[in-house]
Amino acid sequence: MITDILKSIHSPEELRKLPIKQLPELAKELRQFIIQIVAAKEGHLGASLGVVELTIALHYVFNTPKDLLVWDVGHQAYGHKILTGRRDVFHTNRQIKGLSGFPKREESEFDTFGVGHSSTSISAALGMAIANLLKGENRHHIAVIGDASIASGMAFEGLNHAGVTKANLLVILNDNTIGIDPSVGALKQYLTNVKKGTQKQDNIFEALNFDYSGPIDGHDIFKIISELERLKTVKGPKFLHVITKKGKGLKQAEDNQVTYHAPGKFDAITGELSKKLDFKQPPKYQDVFGLTLVELAKKNQKIIGITPAMPTGSSLKYMMEQIPDRAFDVGIAEQHAVTLAAGMATQGSVPFCNIYSTFLQRAYDQVIHDVALQNLPVVFCLDRAGLVGQDGATHHGVFDLAYLRCIPNLIIFAPRNEIELRNIMYTAQLGKLSQPIAIRYPRGRGVTMDWQLDFKEIEIGTAIPLKKGSKIAILSIGTISKNCTEAIGLLENSDTVSHYDMRFVKPLDEKLLHDICAIYDTIITVEDGCVNGGFGNAILEFASKHQYKNTFELLGIPDTFIEHGTIEELQIECHIDPISISKCINKYV
Amino acid sequence: MITDILKSIHSPEELRKLPIKQLPELAKELRQFIIQIVAAKEGHLGASLGVVELTIALHYVFNTPKDLLVWDVGHQAYGHKILTGRRDVFHTNRQIKGLSGFPKREESEFDTFGVGHSSTSISAALGMAIANLLKGENRHHIAVIGDASIASGMAFEGLNHAGVTKANLLVILNDNTIGIDPSVGALKQYLTNVKKGTQKQDNIFEALNFDYSGPIDGHDIFKIISELERLKTVKGPKFLHVITKKGKGLKQAEDNQVTYHAPGKFDAITGELSKKLDFKQPPKYQDVFGLTLVELAKKNQKIIGITPAMPTGSSLKYMMEQIPDRAFDVGIAEQHAVTLAAGMATQGSVPFCNIYSTFLQRAYDQVIHDVALQNLPVVFCLDRAGLVGQDGATHHGVFDLAYLRCIPNLIIFAPRNEIELRNIMYTAQLGKLSQPIAIRYPRGRGVTMDWQLDFKEIEIGTAIPLKKGSKIAILSIGTISKNCTEAIGLLENSDTVSHYDMRFVKPLDEKLLHDICAIYDTIITVEDGCVNGGFGNAILEFASKHQYKNTFELLGIPDTFIEHGTIEELQIECHIDPISISKCINKYV
Repeated sequence: MITDILKSIHSPEELRKLPIKQLPELAKELRQFIIQIVAAKEGHLGASLGVVELTIALHYVFNTPKDLLVWDVGHQAYGHKILTGRRDVFHTNRQIKGLSGFPKREESEFDTFGVGHSSTSISAALGMAIANLLKGENRHHIAVIGDASIASGMAFEGLNHAGVTKANLLVILNDNTIGIDPSVGALKQYLTNVKKGTQKQDNIFEALNFDYSGPIDGHDIFKIISELERLKTVKGPKFLHVITKKGKGLKQAEDNQVTYHAPGKFDAITGELSKKLDFKQPPKYQDVFGLTLVELAKKNQKIIGITPAMPTGSSLKYMMEQIPDRAFDVGIAEQHAVTLAAGMATQGSVPFCNIYSTFLQRAYDQVIHDVALQNLPVVFCLDRAGLVGQDGATHHGVFDLAYLRCIPNLIIFAPRNEIELRNIMYTAQLGKLSQPIAIRYPRGRGVTMDWQLDFKEIEIGTAIPLKKGSKIAILSIGTISKNCTEAIGLLENSDTVSHYDMRFVKPLDEKLLHDICAIYDTIITVEDGCVNGGFGNAILEFASKHQYKNTFELLGIPDTFIEHGTIEELQIECHIDPISISKCINKYV
Repeated sequence: MITDILKSIHSPEELRKLPIKQLPELAKELRQFIIQIVAAKEGHLGASLGVVELTIALHYVFNTPKDLLVWDVGHQAYGHKILTGRRDVFHTNRQIKGLSGFPKREESEFDTFGVGHSSTSISAALGMAIANLLKGENRHHIAVIGDASIASGMAFEGLNHAGVTKANLLVILNDNTIGIDPSVGALKQYLTNVKKGTQKQDNIFEALNFDYSGPIDGHDIFKIISELERLKTVKGPKFLHVITKKGKGLKQAEDNQVTYHAPGKFDAITGELSKKLDFKQPPKYQDVFGLTLVELAKKNQKIIGITPAMPTGSSLKYMMEQIPDRAFDVGIAEQHAVTLAAGMATQGSVPFCNIYSTFLQRAYDQVIHDVALQNLPVVFCLDRAGLVGQDGATHHGVFDLAYLRCIPNLIIFAPRNEIELRNIMYTAQLGKLSQPIAIRYPRGRGVTMDWQLDFKEIEIGTAIPLKKGSKIAILSIGTISKNCTEAIGLLENSDTVSHYDMRFVKPLDEKLLHDICAIYDTIITVEDGCVNGGFGNAILEFASKHQYKNTFELLGIPDTFIEHGTIEELQIECHIDPISISKCINKYV
């Protein structure tokens, strides 16, 4: 599998000893290596294939790791990992205890900055450049950022600052007109015009004081190398516009860029996706959201759908296809997405703003200041809540219950299954809520085949008893309920154990909680979010306020960042798998 | 005080009936009215004086409130409030139960969107415009945004989306080259070049698909009106660049724009600031930060100071004056500020990143993803934590303890007084911490005259006993300690009451807490942050984990947004004033 040149390269230092004419062959081998590993082991594909030549050129021209290279949204960094001493362990990519799917400082001195969320690279590289300028250290600092990522506000803030510094910063725009989904927005149109030569204006980046060059062909390795050599001698902030093709070198990946962003297993030679098993499975939660929204929006003209750059991942694409006027992909712009929704809500619209839990962190102020403070009935649908698996520490949606719970006016709901998700979406658009609501649900598939039942309204702040016992109460929130049910099934004597799906973190079902605190000696809370400040904390707060002195045990994510692995593996690590929960209950039976 | 024309105007409808030639006189009267009220009652001055003509013109040309007007960072909206039926209550501005210092939806149908934090107006107005386009309603939507605010990433996200819509949106750039402090950044330089005519390029805003017009003189009311009339007929997103002078019409305010942003009381005729009382007072916390940082940075070359647009408010200005190479105002760019600091920390620098507590909400993801996840020793100094008084609901820094506490790796400290603030800053830069730290302290003055003592290192995770008793323990965090001490002083029998300054919300002083839980029946926690998820919650969590069954009472900000008023008034409302705390203790004595 490893062919001649690539296997001789154990570090960029060795790479730099190669004659330049061997580099196209190396590019071919590197591309092949990435395809073969990802075909078998899964992972992100298209982004790394697109930057193979750029990756080789950067390490060839610059003196890494002394020169500092920051890869924006690090899933384009597979080639970088392979060339920087991790070729032989690359097959462990995204597996538990294996390589991270993103650059990670602990993993290599060549990984200068951890990058899982987008648009951070310019700020990070500028910080490095300023620090080294102050130290008098002569280093190059390079941020490689995609055209979807550079349209995010944070990247603009970085450019705006860099343009008034003397920092030795090179921003490379990897322009392939696509993020995970195709790029959107006015800047994207502008860049397209620049490439076509129809943009008559000088350049936005020059207006921001960058020395602009490009656009150049990002697959012409000699051209990139010669341009990078030139830019090494240019002082201050500079900007290189590189045109690449996402998925370059694998026809299917080039032709189906969204699918091959992270295609799952596929045939390394033909590129064909592995056949999915044929038997019927429960739906993905994202599809329950996406399809239900279409169903509701067809009847309720007030509904508007919003996603910041995740039409496919959130399944808002269904509404975008069927009701395009009322479904918006606003690009990687979570802050804007939330305040846009707030503006819509002031006019009586019912915006469903779908944001991955981990990315809502980007719009925290907007949730507080623009939505909750004004008590505007925006419906937040937070996908990928809880542990997300292989994407790891940068992507787990485990802080949401804690950071949302302290916000006044906000309703917080987590469905136990598909039907609950459908029904709370139905409830949220009836026009009866006079406040915002956050609905958080996990990555992956649900548990119910027959989920498209008639809608039923959910009464706000009500929990559901799932099982009756006498001595111990399990209070769970969201889909982790399933693990609790299994845990109870594992007990030798489960008669003493009750189980409640609390559904609402806010408002709590206080009436029920009074009964629970009065009846049960021991109360065990279970959540797939962080224990600090989360759902269990809300229960403690309630009990303390009313001076109940039950024994409490709070299960959930501990106060540490959780790395990557399968969700099941990570649940075991966090002691919220069925066996761990069962053992915990057993302490009190 | 109210002169002829202004007193005849009770609504924009009446304004629109005036002959246009009377408007310059009205502008004069409106300006005078603002000056007279703010001189006596305090508030924001310069911003509203700068937009007097623009305010009149907007309400004259557009059919408000049907046409929707959004004022970015609403402190420029005094004229708007006065012209929209609130003239006779404007003297209650910023007082408890009085008018809010910012636009507020509950206050008037003319206040279409609450705006206390900056750079939200484009997103909000675009949301309104899209909603009304879908409804088929023919309305105009206008966002008025300053040149400091438009440089923030969120505003760019709004522009980038608006440029690909057909929304009836007018963005008015109120360009006065200053926010609270002078504007910074590459975009500011660009705008300056546009004004000077030395900018050879076409326009950034045209590149983003806006129909650009300007720059025009924002104090020429006839010119503004004629341009607005023209723009009413232009379809789609359009952009008007207006040049104004902050503080226009009051010489001192024009000449000293930073001071007269919010000057306190002054003489309405001469403009002279009211003399400050001569006796020596304890320092402001911001000055303890600013002066201590200079002291430390002179000895420690690794220290770098960062502020997002608050050099004066944070007192980073002292370091910017004395060590300009290592002190950065990055503009209204909290996200960038945090990740810039993270980048610096990777190179061994010690960045002190000073952000108001309420504005750190803007950089929440960056704190988690770029700093804490990578465990980079950035020092966050969070000014204006707790209740801030007259700025009200948009500005209280009451969520920080809750939203920070769930973040792994982060140390959270709140100083009881100036000396503690100095000493924790000293401790944070010794190079011994291998993790980030957040230091949060309030607006206003401290309690200690003689505060510039020799530095002492603080042991991380240690609390301080302040008073010894037998039965009840008060655990406080930060400067609210003072109210607890006073509360204890009010008790008839205080022998049974202990008081601890816990100092660290994270890590907790667990050794001491074991003793406390073992000794005292009742534990009362006191914080000037929200109870949900905050400091008291951390104590509950500890107690529950170790199965202590003490009685707990958690004092702090309740689960509601707190409006404006003096800090003392708001503390009474939240029951964390000395008398309320004392009453609470008395329940258990």
